[in-house]
Amino acid sequence: MTSFSSSRPATAVLLAAGLGTRMKSSRAKAMQQIAGLPMLAHLLASASAVFDRLVVVIGPGMEEVAELVAPYPVIIQHERLGTAHAALQAEACFGDGDVAVLYADNPLISAHTLTTLLEERRKAGVGLALLAMRPQDPARYGRVLAHEGEVSRIVEWADATPEERNVDLCNAGVLCADAADFRRWLHAVRNDNAKGEFYLTDVVGLAVAEQVRVRAVEAPEDELRGVNSRAELALAEAAIQTRLRETAMAEGVTLVAPETVFLCADTCLSPDVLIEPHVVFGPGVIVHEGATIRSFSHLEGCEIHAGSVIGPYARIRPGSSIGAGSRVGNFVEIKATTMGTGVKVNHLSYLGDSRVGNRTNIGAGTITCNYDGTFKHSTLIGHDVFVGSDSVLVAPLNIGDNALIGAGSVITTDVPPDALALGRARQINKDEQGKRFKDMLRAKKENG
Amino acid sequence: MTSFSSSRPATAVLLAAGLGTRMKSSRAKAMQQIAGLPMLAHLLASASAVFDRLVVVIGPGMEEVAELVAPYPVIIQHERLGTAHAALQAEACFGDGDVAVLYADNPLISAHTLTTLLEERRKAGVGLALLAMRPQDPARYGRVLAHEGEVSRIVEWADATPEERNVDLCNAGVLCADAADFRRWLHAVRNDNAKGEFYLTDVVGLAVAEQVRVRAVEAPEDELRGVNSRAELALAEAAIQTRLRETAMAEGVTLVAPETVFLCADTCLSPDVLIEPHVVFGPGVIVHEGATIRSFSHLEGCEIHAGSVIGPYARIRPGSSIGAGSRVGNFVEIKATTMGTGVKVNHLSYLGDSRVGNRTNIGAGTITCNYDGTFKHSTLIGHDVFVGSDSVLVAPLNIGDNALIGAGSVITTDVPPDALALGRARQINKDEQGKRFKDMLRAKKENG
Amino acid sequence: MTSFSSSRPATAVLLAAGLGTRMKSSRAKAMQQIAGLPMLAHLLASASAVFDRLVVVIGPGMEEVAELVAPYPVIIQHERLGTAHAALQAEACFGDGDVAVLYADNPLISAHTLTTLLEERRKAGVGLALLAMRPQDPARYGRVLAHEGEVSRIVEWADATPEERNVDLCNAGVLCADAADFRRWLHAVRNDNAKGEFYLTDVVGLAVAEQVRVRAVEAPEDELRGVNSRAELALAEAAIQTRLRETAMAEGVTLVAPETVFLCADTCLSPDVLIEPHVVFGPGVIVHEGATIRSFSHLEGCEIHAGSVIGPYARIRPGSSIGAGSRVGNFVEIKATTMGTGVKVNHLSYLGDSRVGNRTNIGAGTITCNYDGTFKHSTLIGHDVFVGSDSVLVAPLNIGDNALIGAGSVITTDVPPDALALGRARQINKDEQGKRFKDMLRAKKENG
Repeated sequence: MTSFSSSRPATAVLLAAGLGTRMKSSRAKAMQQIAGLPMLAHLLASASAVFDRLVVVIGPGMEEVAELVAPYPVIIQHERLGTAHAALQAEACFGDGDVAVLYADNPLISAHTLTTLLEERRKAGVGLALLAMRPQDPARYGRVLAHEGEVSRIVEWADATPEERNVDLCNAGVLCADAADFRRWLHAVRNDNAKGEFYLTDVVGLAVAEQVRVRAVEAPEDELRGVNSRAELALAEAAIQTRLRETAMAEGVTLVAPETVFLCADTCLSPDVLIEPHVVFGPGVIVHEGATIRSFSHLEGCEIHAGSVIGPYARIRPGSSIGAGSRVGNFVEIKATTMGTGVKVNHLSYLGDSRVGNRTNIGAGTITCNYDGTFKHSTLIGHDVFVGSDSVLVAPLNIGDNALIGAGSVITTDVPPDALALGRARQINKDEQGKRFKDMLRAKKENG
Repeated sequence: MTSFSSSRPATAVLLAAGLGTRMKSSRAKAMQQIAGLPMLAHLLASASAVFDRLVVVIGPGMEEVAELVAPYPVIIQHERLGTAHAALQAEACFGDGDVAVLYADNPLISAHTLTTLLEERRKAGVGLALLAMRPQDPARYGRVLAHEGEVSRIVEWADATPEERNVDLCNAGVLCADAADFRRWLHAVRNDNAKGEFYLTDVVGLAVAEQVRVRAVEAPEDELRGVNSRAELALAEAAIQTRLRETAMAEGVTLVAPETVFLCADTCLSPDVLIEPHVVFGPGVIVHEGATIRSFSHLEGCEIHAGSVIGPYARIRPGSSIGAGSRVGNFVEIKATTMGTGVKVNHLSYLGDSRVGNRTNIGAGTITCNYDGTFKHSTLIGHDVFVGSDSVLVAPLNIGDNALIGAGSVITTDVPPDALALGRARQINKDEQGKRFKDMLRAKKENG
Repeated sequence: MTSFSSSRPATAVLLAAGLGTRMKSSRAKAMQQIAGLPMLAHLLASASAVFDRLVVVIGPGMEEVAELVAPYPVIIQHERLGTAHAALQAEACFGDGDVAVLYADNPLISAHTLTTLLEERRKAGVGLALLAMRPQDPARYGRVLAHEGEVSRIVEWADATPEERNVDLCNAGVLCADAADFRRWLHAVRNDNAKGEFYLTDVVGLAVAEQVRVRAVEAPEDELRGVNSRAELALAEAAIQTRLRETAMAEGVTLVAPETVFLCADTCLSPDVLIEPHVVFGPGVIVHEGATIRSFSHLEGCEIHAGSVIGPYARIRPGSSIGAGSRVGNFVEIKATTMGTGVKVNHLSYLGDSRVGNRTNIGAGTITCNYDGTFKHSTLIGHDVFVGSDSVLVAPLNIGDNALIGAGSVITTDVPPDALALGRARQINKDEQGKRFKDMLRAKKENG
């Protein structure tokens, strides 16, 4: 996607001042997440691929949004007087090229669609371009009255005749015009309506009244669906997940049951990766060729090298790297740990803040004790080490190459290379005592 | 939903004598579960919100159903002679108001629909009201021949002309009439048909023959779908799950992937609760504002207080309460345990029959040993305690505030406040022994 | 399904030489899996139920496919010159009866459909039978021009008139003819087309030109969908899963949420088995009557006996058998282990290469140490044993009936029947030391 950094600059104004009222949330609507990122981040990504300048209009107290948006500038809309009013707050940033107004709660618009919108606007004689769609259920959307893309009018559903309601081309609200025109029209918008708000949509009527040519650019409903409620948030999530899954499969990834696998916008999967049913990817995951992610695994912020097998029931947390041909098995949690090649951690273990050498085998139930209640400490485990089952490795700790840790040991001091370390009590068998203890309990129970 | 406790009483007769034949189950059909409750419980809930009196007709030997139904009375249908015969068994309970006959295998009817049915019946001149639907696939349902709701006839699919089969209004079988009329008609129903059964549907013909006005009340298919097979049970489950998820989202709960989250009829979720993909709720769960339930978690009979983070892979079992701002992490099971505020149990632990004070940290791999094979014992852990990783807490046990348990300890006696408790063997490193042991194994392997 | 082992033999030629190019896979396409088996295995199963002889055409270097196919013969197509060329490689195996040509990437054809195809071919006067379907989206499939099943022509989408494209009967590519006819036609196919390939479809034109009667046999799209990409692989998986789930439910299995349960072609579930949401079955699982598989469980190669409760979060691995009325709980892994009746392994344990007697209770956090880095060893646990929590059982090991293992023990030598075995250090409480240690850490933190 190339930016239009030609002679004529293009500016996108992103309206993100919306509260989460209909979501019943205390959070700014723009911060609601889809595919692991705030809605606004998705829109920033596609808009920044197309426009030279971005400016975001936010509400008062939305520091969280401003932080996300940086280094792009934000402008605060102090009063909520409608979308035209919001767009007008950014007037000073319009510059002298083209201006498009986008919405944080329309987060799925692709860069491709934005490019088409801008190109259409720049066609000879076109003064205003808008995005339209043909939704499965047109419901109460405003209808776009147009002939072969030439828009004559937008009519709100409430004002539409039955005939006009039969029109299935609907207004998505996104507009693109020359900065000077846009300024003029925005200032001319009036609020003499039921809610007393300044509506951006009125710009279309003003343009038509000036005999300006207005063009509708059609885009898929899935890109233009608005997100105003939790239910619509879920629909947007579903739409983006479908897109991400299809892209992964097209690139040679096997998703046995795509509908049960949840990806992030930045999940990076190589060809011949196999993903079994019921897997969740958080942000920042890279999986290399031929790796298998088995069912019920959960990965965040990690890199899985070629040919590794992860799961089922593996949880890999941020800052982890699993070496080629390694194996992380069930009920295993890996956090901020770098594993070499051919490592095995197959069962019921927790490795945190660790480094594990090549071909090392970590027995079932091994736990790194990396936190003393105040500080976190590191555990370094060498190559070809064999850690017996149910060992506790109390960090800071250094276990040399080829060392062997006896099962059930608590290891508190460093282990030299080639050494055997043991830290467990000797077993005692007491004849008949097992039976006696049981008999005692049984008697106690019978006596109430 | 207000009850019609006016001058005129209303009685619902619930037919629940059906066996699970087509389900190939040894269990009464009414006891098959949807959304965590027996089908009949759903119907009892909506019927009891509308009717003054309920009576349930069951089959012989269905004690399990009678127990569920209590304190409502049950009547046993000793012979299975058809739906009209079943309804007639409850004749003595009809009283002198209105009577509606409902079916345990039509469990999703809403209180709203039942209210409408009763209101319709009570309209001037109406003698019989019935429920009808327009299913996506009308299949072999009986067709309701009606004009603007005025029913002239119900025709069974087998007897219908091609033209009648084109009618898409279908009979759901639910009827409501004055008690005296209902009695008279039920006694008049005959069994001169192929199966020799007394069909409740014949009541409609009898009413029409008496020139009684019969009205059809339409309701959504999802409320009226019958559940006769495991496949239909799954469809009913899906319908009720959709309803529960939509309600949750409307109330401000984020369901990232609603289709992967399973709720119970009584699941109680507050606004700004976030539920990640792949979460299962059993009966009796309350989650307070701002809590997050991460992927692959399973909750039953517990209360999660505000701002807690649960999972991924957390299992919370009945009788548990997780204090505000607490954290229950991966591969952790909590059973009959009350946790204070700001508690952390992050990894691979089992807490059963315990009480944990505020700000206490439970290390990875901690296990409460609450069962001696005969009795269950309690573990009391104070405030600000630090339990080192891989500790075993053998109940009954009392650990004082501010105590510290060394990693890998087996704790069998009480720990005073502020004390350090240790119960582990000293570590021994044996130089070269690790290598020697490995060499020995390798040699053994090579020698076969 | 009875085989046509009558006087007239029938041979199926399975074309399996396809590379995974469009799948971006380094693996032969025929080896891509659905429902836990390679695609070709599904086709082998249905074809072998109908045809007397099978022969599979593979590409060079596809040893993996040849191994799967054995003992059926394979023939190597050395050059990829088209489907007719591929079929012709198997000419020597055609014999003297009927021959059908099938495709490894059409793996879902049922034995029923193949039987119908063969029967149609054998009807008086019919020289060639082919499979056709009416897909939801006919897309660019070749169209079958036919009147009441009598085929006059197959027209490729590219060559079709708009009128012909309106035909919704599409060619699935599968043909069946007398061996001699088939040979003659295959030799007559020419490669004077854009790609210079010999197309099997051309056989239809040759037959029609000879005035041979050609019949189209219609089959459901879900049986005939081609699998050429990862997306189509996922669709085939979905189709077969739907089929498997419906069959299970029809046989009396409750699937609370069928869409979240993944079965294998060979999964064997009895009536009144209950499967909760989110369960994955690998190959070779048998579950007996009345058993419950709870959410987030993962089973492979195991037998679950009547009335057992498995999960949530149980992983049962190959070679395991769970006795009647047993209980395998959360975060428990069972591998190559035979459990008697009424056994409990409820929490956070790993049992590998073990045998567990009746009524034995395995405490939380128990781990069998079955691997010394080189060899695997067995653990034998008797009847009525009570293994205390967090025990390590170092194999080879034999624990007698009625024995009792103290919590937190490392057990390295055999335990006689009725004995109590302990292997843990004594607890020491150090007054005020917990507080001092914490104070020290806090001071350290404050000093930077």
